[in-house]
Amino acid sequence: MTTSLDPVHLTRNLIRCASVTPAEGGALVLLEDVLSGAGFTCTRVDRGGVANLFARWGDKGHAKTFGFNGHTDVVPPGDETAWTHAPFSGDLENGILWGRGATDMKSGVAAFAAAAVDFVRQTPPDGAIVLAITGDEEGDAVDGTTALLDWMGEAGEAMSACLVGEPTCPENMGDMIKIGRRGSMTGWFRVTGVQGHSAYPHRAKNPLPALARLVDRLASHELDQGSAHFDASTLAVVTMDTGNPATNVIPAECSAAVNIRFNDLHSGASLSKWLEEEADRAAAEFGVGIELKVKISGESFLTPPGPLSDLVARAVEAETGRSPVLSTSGGTSDARFVKDHCPVVEFGLVGKTMHQVDEHVPAEQIEQLKTIYKRILTDFFA
Amino acid sequence: MTTSLDPVHLTRNLIRCASVTPAEGGALVLLEDVLSGAGFTCTRVDRGGVANLFARWGDKGHAKTFGFNGHTDVVPPGDETAWTHAPFSGDLENGILWGRGATDMKSGVAAFAAAAVDFVRQTPPDGAIVLAITGDEEGDAVDGTTALLDWMGEAGEAMSACLVGEPTCPENMGDMIKIGRRGSMTGWFRVTGVQGHSAYPHRAKNPLPALARLVDRLASHELDQGSAHFDASTLAVVTMDTGNPATNVIPAECSAAVNIRFNDLHSGASLSKWLEEEADRAAAEFGVGIELKVKISGESFLTPPGPLSDLVARAVEAETGRSPVLSTSGGTSDARFVKDHCPVVEFGLVGKTMHQVDEHVPAEQIEQLKTIYKRILTDFFA
Repeated sequence: MTTSLDPVHLTRNLIRCASVTPAEGGALVLLEDVLSGAGFTCTRVDRGGVANLFARWGDKGHAKTFGFNGHTDVVPPGDETAWTHAPFSGDLENGILWGRGATDMKSGVAAFAAAAVDFVRQTPPDGAIVLAITGDEEGDAVDGTTALLDWMGEAGEAMSACLVGEPTCPENMGDMIKIGRRGSMTGWFRVTGVQGHSAYPHRAKNPLPALARLVDRLASHELDQGSAHFDASTLAVVTMDTGNPATNVIPAECSAAVNIRFNDLHSGASLSKWLEEEADRAAAEFGVGIELKVKISGESFLTPPGPLSDLVARAVEAETGRSPVLSTSGGTSDARFVKDHCPVVEFGLVGKTMHQVDEHVPAEQIEQLKTIYKRILTDFFA
Repeated sequence: MTTSLDPVHLTRNLIRCASVTPAEGGALVLLEDVLSGAGFTCTRVDRGGVANLFARWGDKGHAKTFGFNGHTDVVPPGDETAWTHAPFSGDLENGILWGRGATDMKSGVAAFAAAAVDFVRQTPPDGAIVLAITGDEEGDAVDGTTALLDWMGEAGEAMSACLVGEPTCPENMGDMIKIGRRGSMTGWFRVTGVQGHSAYPHRAKNPLPALARLVDRLASHELDQGSAHFDASTLAVVTMDTGNPATNVIPAECSAAVNIRFNDLHSGASLSKWLEEEADRAAAEFGVGIELKVKISGESFLTPPGPLSDLVARAVEAETGRSPVLSTSGGTSDARFVKDHCPVVEFGLVGKTMHQVDEHVPAEQIEQLKTIYKRILTDFFA
């Protein structure tokens, strides 16, 4: 007798775990329970206050080991009163599943866990299946997938190919596979002037106009128009802050942060230099001080089209009737760490509402994703 | 026999009344006692939880009525442990009087009360003297001098000229008389877009670049270059805020505030229109929503140089040897209400330490201020 694991039910239960980075929220505990019950050897690989879960079915270090990678942590819900359904309710209504993580990516984790469990129960392969699931993808990602890969190296665990289950489809299920990613970096600016009374601005040195000019310039600059395998690089201003409640006081300092996603026409170093130059230019124009702090989360990378992307594309086409585009668009993902260990591609559902208020997903899309993942396993071990 | 009322002693006693807005603290009760004893008819004109005192010597509605206006409320002392002398001690040491209100403006009220009392005792004039003293100048100023003026209108009380005893001198006693004030207003902007992932900026609608452009335009716009009696109008950006801690999230909204001090080339309405137009322009360019909320604290006003300012300037020069500048600089004051009733000028002592920790004043400056005020009365009724 074989049973089938319901990926929608599992996603709902995962959404109900309020696992805003770095909180584990019960999500990995739940997965460990499900996977252990299906014969997976589970190991918690926690590091630096972050929870991670490694699960393997089959022999350690088997030459034919298929890996899945994903994360159960989610970004904060923001203003919870703005949500139609409470962000951690996991409400299922008229076939739509609502909640933070519904697309990014508790559904993806549930789908590959359910596919793997069904597959090993129904047609145990000559090989191994590995699930490397982290609780730190939306945060610093320092103690997440990296910690799992470090531990795997030490423990003699390996993967011969890996699929990251992030949402990859822009419009319809099956329309995109990712074979690389743009680089990602963040720059924080702190502008310092001299405090004073609003009625006497000439006696103060207001840092805010300098910040506004700098931010306007950065936001309106075209970094490039894209390259052979990559879309155009983008810069998003993510915050500007002062925290001055007194309208009769000119504040002494303010700050801003920008997040850049860049293709192979740039590097973290070249962009850092550009940010520094713009900061210096605005500082000189306004006579204020501007400090820049930069964090490069990852350089751009590419897994050139080959056997793994072919395998995934065929399975997607068989289940959806769509021939997926091989793309490098979008943000960074933990594939940037995995690519140093084995061939890696990314495929998941439609990510339209990720990180938004009222994040949601059609339940049937989760079912379909599970079916695609199961076919990938079938073809891989055939 | 005539006695002389000691303005330093009276200031000390007023400082010991902890009359932080809107608390009366005993200050107006003390003044009523002193003024009643000298033959003034006193009326408490309390409104909206604020205490105000009206005092008149001479006939009601006399065609020759000189008015003094001032306030006994003070701003909070802040961290009391930071004061060398306790803020409500009224300590007098080596000729320096310490405490909250020492310059702004219990000394001014004490000086004009003492001048008026001495004057009517020594040389009773053919006319009237009115003292309109409020307990709500540092707060909203809704139920303060306005309440007194409203009541005066209903009661048939009038002034033919008025002097506001606020500190006006930037450096030395006698160096400045104020004959008007710039207007003051604050505009709050709230920009709304659509939240999203930093990696997919085209799916979000980032409000921050719109705010940066708007703020840059407002801050770099020259409102004017000044007018006959006024300095150039100024705009100070006082805050820009988002409060988004997640660098991978484009926020849904952000805000900013600007404070404008404007001369007679503008009005609150004309500037509100300008702010609204710039908000609409940025909203259209960036496809975001921008709401504007405006509060006009006061319009600009001017009592053109004439008999009243000449009278005050002559008295100041006679007592100090300095020829005072006629200025419209600085923040707002209750003269903005009085100017609708009669010609008004402002003259008081050096305001350097007003609103600061360790507010203090040389005792002899209070004596000198009383002497100047008394000479103004003498010349007015001559």
